[in-house]
Amino acid sequence: MPAAGRHFLQIPGPTNVPDRVLRAIDNPTMDHRGPAFGEMGAEVLALLKQVFQTSGPVIVYPASGTGAWEAALTNTLSPGDHVLMSETGWFASLWREMAERLSLHPEFIPGDWRRGADVAGIAERLAKDSSHAIKAVCVVHNETSTGCVSQIAEVRAAIDAAKHPALLMVDTISSLASIDYKHEAWGVDVTVAGSQKGLMLPPGLSFNAISPKAEAARKTAKLPRSYWDWGPMLAANATGFFPYTPATNLLYGAKAACEMLLEEGLANVFARHDRHAEATRRAVRAWGLEIQCAEPKHYSSSLTAVRLPEGHSADALRGKILEKFNMSLGNGLGQLKDRVFRIGHLGDFNDLMLCGTLSGVEMGLRAAGVPHKEGGVQAAMAYLAGNA
Amino acid sequence: MPAAGRHFLQIPGPTNVPDRVLRAIDNPTMDHRGPAFGEMGAEVLALLKQVFQTSGPVIVYPASGTGAWEAALTNTLSPGDHVLMSETGWFASLWREMAERLSLHPEFIPGDWRRGADVAGIAERLAKDSSHAIKAVCVVHNETSTGCVSQIAEVRAAIDAAKHPALLMVDTISSLASIDYKHEAWGVDVTVAGSQKGLMLPPGLSFNAISPKAEAARKTAKLPRSYWDWGPMLAANATGFFPYTPATNLLYGAKAACEMLLEEGLANVFARHDRHAEATRRAVRAWGLEIQCAEPKHYSSSLTAVRLPEGHSADALRGKILEKFNMSLGNGLGQLKDRVFRIGHLGDFNDLMLCGTLSGVEMGLRAAGVPHKEGGVQAAMAYLAGNA
Amino acid sequence: MPAAGRHFLQIPGPTNVPDRVLRAIDNPTMDHRGPAFGEMGAEVLALLKQVFQTSGPVIVYPASGTGAWEAALTNTLSPGDHVLMSETGWFASLWREMAERLSLHPEFIPGDWRRGADVAGIAERLAKDSSHAIKAVCVVHNETSTGCVSQIAEVRAAIDAAKHPALLMVDTISSLASIDYKHEAWGVDVTVAGSQKGLMLPPGLSFNAISPKAEAARKTAKLPRSYWDWGPMLAANATGFFPYTPATNLLYGAKAACEMLLEEGLANVFARHDRHAEATRRAVRAWGLEIQCAEPKHYSSSLTAVRLPEGHSADALRGKILEKFNMSLGNGLGQLKDRVFRIGHLGDFNDLMLCGTLSGVEMGLRAAGVPHKEGGVQAAMAYLAGNA
Amino acid sequence: MPAAGRHFLQIPGPTNVPDRVLRAIDNPTMDHRGPAFGEMGAEVLALLKQVFQTSGPVIVYPASGTGAWEAALTNTLSPGDHVLMSETGWFASLWREMAERLSLHPEFIPGDWRRGADVAGIAERLAKDSSHAIKAVCVVHNETSTGCVSQIAEVRAAIDAAKHPALLMVDTISSLASIDYKHEAWGVDVTVAGSQKGLMLPPGLSFNAISPKAEAARKTAKLPRSYWDWGPMLAANATGFFPYTPATNLLYGAKAACEMLLEEGLANVFARHDRHAEATRRAVRAWGLEIQCAEPKHYSSSLTAVRLPEGHSADALRGKILEKFNMSLGNGLGQLKDRVFRIGHLGDFNDLMLCGTLSGVEMGLRAAGVPHKEGGVQAAMAYLAGNA
Repeated sequence: MPAAGRHFLQIPGPTNVPDRVLRAIDNPTMDHRGPAFGEMGAEVLALLKQVFQTSGPVIVYPASGTGAWEAALTNTLSPGDHVLMSETGWFASLWREMAERLSLHPEFIPGDWRRGADVAGIAERLAKDSSHAIKAVCVVHNETSTGCVSQIAEVRAAIDAAKHPALLMVDTISSLASIDYKHEAWGVDVTVAGSQKGLMLPPGLSFNAISPKAEAARKTAKLPRSYWDWGPMLAANATGFFPYTPATNLLYGAKAACEMLLEEGLANVFARHDRHAEATRRAVRAWGLEIQCAEPKHYSSSLTAVRLPEGHSADALRGKILEKFNMSLGNGLGQLKDRVFRIGHLGDFNDLMLCGTLSGVEMGLRAAGVPHKEGGVQAAMAYLAGNA
Repeated sequence: MPAAGRHFLQIPGPTNVPDRVLRAIDNPTMDHRGPAFGEMGAEVLALLKQVFQTSGPVIVYPASGTGAWEAALTNTLSPGDHVLMSETGWFASLWREMAERLSLHPEFIPGDWRRGADVAGIAERLAKDSSHAIKAVCVVHNETSTGCVSQIAEVRAAIDAAKHPALLMVDTISSLASIDYKHEAWGVDVTVAGSQKGLMLPPGLSFNAISPKAEAARKTAKLPRSYWDWGPMLAANATGFFPYTPATNLLYGAKAACEMLLEEGLANVFARHDRHAEATRRAVRAWGLEIQCAEPKHYSSSLTAVRLPEGHSADALRGKILEKFNMSLGNGLGQLKDRVFRIGHLGDFNDLMLCGTLSGVEMGLRAAGVPHKEGGVQAAMAYLAGNA
Repeated sequence: MPAAGRHFLQIPGPTNVPDRVLRAIDNPTMDHRGPAFGEMGAEVLALLKQVFQTSGPVIVYPASGTGAWEAALTNTLSPGDHVLMSETGWFASLWREMAERLSLHPEFIPGDWRRGADVAGIAERLAKDSSHAIKAVCVVHNETSTGCVSQIAEVRAAIDAAKHPALLMVDTISSLASIDYKHEAWGVDVTVAGSQKGLMLPPGLSFNAISPKAEAARKTAKLPRSYWDWGPMLAANATGFFPYTPATNLLYGAKAACEMLLEEGLANVFARHDRHAEATRRAVRAWGLEIQCAEPKHYSSSLTAVRLPEGHSADALRGKILEKFNMSLGNGLGQLKDRVFRIGHLGDFNDLMLCGTLSGVEMGLRAAGVPHKEGGVQAAMAYLAGNA
Repeated sequence: MPAAGRHFLQIPGPTNVPDRVLRAIDNPTMDHRGPAFGEMGAEVLALLKQVFQTSGPVIVYPASGTGAWEAALTNTLSPGDHVLMSETGWFASLWREMAERLSLHPEFIPGDWRRGADVAGIAERLAKDSSHAIKAVCVVHNETSTGCVSQIAEVRAAIDAAKHPALLMVDTISSLASIDYKHEAWGVDVTVAGSQKGLMLPPGLSFNAISPKAEAARKTAKLPRSYWDWGPMLAANATGFFPYTPATNLLYGAKAACEMLLEEGLANVFARHDRHAEATRRAVRAWGLEIQCAEPKHYSSSLTAVRLPEGHSADALRGKILEKFNMSLGNGLGQLKDRVFRIGHLGDFNDLMLCGTLSGVEMGLRAAGVPHKEGGVQAAMAYLAGNA
């Protein structure tokens, strides 16, 4: 029997794409070398700078976020370079794997997947690196596999305190436009982002916001690169164009999405996400379940990963919720496989969508026979109604 | 500040139009006299018969439901004809007004707006009408202003018991494709319907399903008619065409919507609506509020009208909910103005949309200072989870 | 084998709906009684006034153009009233039939379907009507069946010269927003229009622009009316709302379409149509075929009807063109059945679409074995290139 | 003044995206790890095989065609490997540049940009390469900058005749689904393609169809790769999924586009393109202009590049045509800058769109003062009408 009503897409990305963005995307493709494109391209690039909170360039790739990781590394580094990474979870681990495949030498500060990046560990390692073997510090801002946020300003301060010249690279794939993030003010050199989360777009675009220092590093970086090379991008972007055919229709959507974010106001967007995250955590606690993130100051505002009691399968729960309540939740990844489920509460989202989402979880826990207390939705509503 | 996320359109129609229907509607308009149109037209007309549960013709007007009321009357009646109507609420009253404006003579059996049509009253009046002055009995199946359903099969039985030749006309504007309705099996002569409720379309189409007896009545009916005349419609519809330019793009949508309903199965569609209505009533009772419909066997499965405690304004509550929770609810009409609000739970709808909706009401009651008990959403979830 | 590429919809309406309008129409339906609707409704109504070139009200019906004909008559006239009509072609004849069905008494000045309304005949009849039996003069501005335009300002002058109080009603269904038309400056009392021609919308909306004199006539007009009644419309429209559920999604489209027309500028829109019509006529002459309109000052700028040589079937030609070249052309209606085909060159249209259209006709004439000379497209291009 | 009517996008890609594809793309994004995605993914991958005419795997990247070039090289080759390339034009030159940037050693057989790949030159070089230093032969099937087609089956025969183990890689970016191309039957090892040409999609997807030999080469190839690595792709694709977030909405479009191509039938699609190309060449000859492709058996069926008379600027002509006739044409690239313009006649295209296109060129030549004879459109029509 086909499912009636609107599917609840509550994975931590791709998120629910607003109708305004979908309608933008389905406009006829235009000549990517004509004057109308140049105007549109320049507009999109300018809008993106506001969203990344930078006055510098933002590179747009027709690619998934994974591509933007690769671009960050290949544009700035040379084979054998050491990069310092912090094990925040599955995505930090994948980024490390990529660095290895690209012939870099990642140093991985171990973590327990229950908090953000280990700033003290980073500081300690940099302090010892008097030869400056480490060329970059790579941190995942919001670890999508765990719902833990790293303190980027603190990482910056640690690098500065060590007077270390390493570049700071930050993955904001599931935080940009959901959790406050200041590329320029925080002194980030390369910010990596994707379209399908807080930016409210379908997947297919990814981004590098870059600092002058990163741009300079490109000139000596020896990793081979062609598709990802910033050089031709920066040159063509200067007039609103791209060196190869861009994903025109997704750019239409990017324009619409940025306009929506700026109309709402970034501060309001971030406050909305904070509020929904707090309501979600109150629901989780009311159910008597455990939040994967163990450090309150690292709580993510874009998703919440929830641990299941021993002996219960998160995937069985998710399957039941999909079947009975037409909602998709995020699965556990890597060492968290089947141990957690993840509730995405980011993107184009509001109070009643959240209540519907939490209702689906609460009814799903019951349907799947997972031990819990009732009252999670009630707790969330009490918070939302008091703070509306 | 613009509202984020999807608006909850929970008035009892127009309802949330599914993406599949919207995508159908935005296809290029075609030649309404070309062969491809004829094929499409014939398909839509055949599908509609299934939805109306009839083997006879269904006429489609480019018009609102109000137009289909007018069509029902003008095709079958003559100036001065008596029509027997039952005061179920605001829409029954408007239909009576229309009958008067069209120079008919409506007899209106009074009602208290808290139950369906007064079948005993209808039976009694028909029994007395030995001269057969009454030419039609007009009943609203689902009174959208009150959430009360009339028992059409009983009305039919009453007419038959009286051996009265009056036509039976039924307004199913807010019940078709939501609440079980059998045009043919119940012996209805003219069924009036609209596109924007259970049919999951935008407003702009309305319908008359007609019996052979109604078709015969047209030949002697003297009310002037042109736009609404069934004659040219039936002739042109025979080959899938229309006598004047039809609302082509809405017909694309009608095809998609009927296909969706039949894929789900009408029985499943009705069961889904019954279930959501029961969950809603449990929420209302948990809040300690009163359901406008006072007769359980007349409860509507497409909407629930809820009475506010004395001294509280339903419109203030609705305004607060729209402002804080981005949800539209139905207002009180006529004598119920500001006394009730109406929750639409019909159309393309599912459990989590309902939970979001009820959450919005519960938080709104709190925000607006309307006395109530908490736990409505909890009660609804208990029912839904047990019955999912 | 499915047809590749875009269909050429070159009937004289429905016309090619621009993507911007289709994208507007497929937005989610909103609450037609909520504040956002009121704002949108007021905007649409204000924009429409500009398109009709009037400062007075424009009524919008969820209905085909045929409905707006009926509305014009029923709001202003009483049973038995004489109306003076001029036989310009098929649509004037249909309007007359409608008047008869509505119990009016139409007087029909005969015509040969090859020119606009017979202004002298109208003047003559009015001069004789010293008792003012004639209550309305009804004229089709652009006769869609023939491609002949009536001179509305001259009709107005004739009425004035006769000092006759009859209302002036004009059908602009296939001229509005294509051929210059000034409701107010020309002293028209009721203008009838539809959505699916120059307004670039799908079918489903129709319009009455009304003068204060027409509005006053409503108060004494005795034809029964309910759906079409201006009274409740004017009252509700004052705040941007409608007395019954409007065709919300088509109104979204109407807003977009009016904005497009005003961005281009009405004068530019009219000039564009004039130019394409002249190019089309040059093509027709080059082919050695005859234009149905025999009076150059009555040439239509929205369509051109073309006569076929004796012994050749226009419908066979149209069928061939549809089959081989994926283009729909208009058929001959009434006495012109199978004698003419009609080329629509109105709406969202440009030079290259016209050249494609004329190429389809020229190749179709050849494929169907209709005697003609080559060079029609060449002649059109010579004109367009010289005037571009 | 905004341009009325539909823009003619007649660059050789991106092409006019059909409404059916655009409507598919604007459906809500789904969970890329859920069961519904797996089904859809498997369907798309199976459909693509049919379009590439292969029983082997087709890899889909969220990327431009440029990315698929890079993927072909990095998956199969090691630093310093020799690759044999043939200078067919601008895109062959760019591919060579990319090979250099990736630390390969391209050998470039010079060409005059007026014919397809130099098969004799390839044969000759391979014959001399007894040490098998050459690891791959890379050929552009349809050189988008010149409108010349390379004979892939002949290249295959040359490699076989030389008994040379080099891989055969073919760029079909502007030929796939427009010009007959048989990945498997022609023994191609890696086929490179993009979404925005014959596949009728917006840009943003690119493809590698691969042979077992290519797949085997991956195991020893030492170029660093991560994003482009076939390994994880093949593993995930086996169940319809992707190793990183795919461009979901473009995949919806890919499904619709493949279905359209297969409904029409590939043979019909190719014949349609051949016919439009021949009509275009007849127009060019009638104008007295020169076709860039000097070798008739190398004529492209997807685009025609046209040389301007000495002293005339192709870019000025294109600018005039865009301004006056709302049509985009392709510009001259590299050594052909300002010397040629390119007419794209590929993708979702039909006879009347072609006639409109050629009319725009003919009127543009006149408007721009480029010496030419009239009659190009006439010549094209004569051919099309005779062959329709």
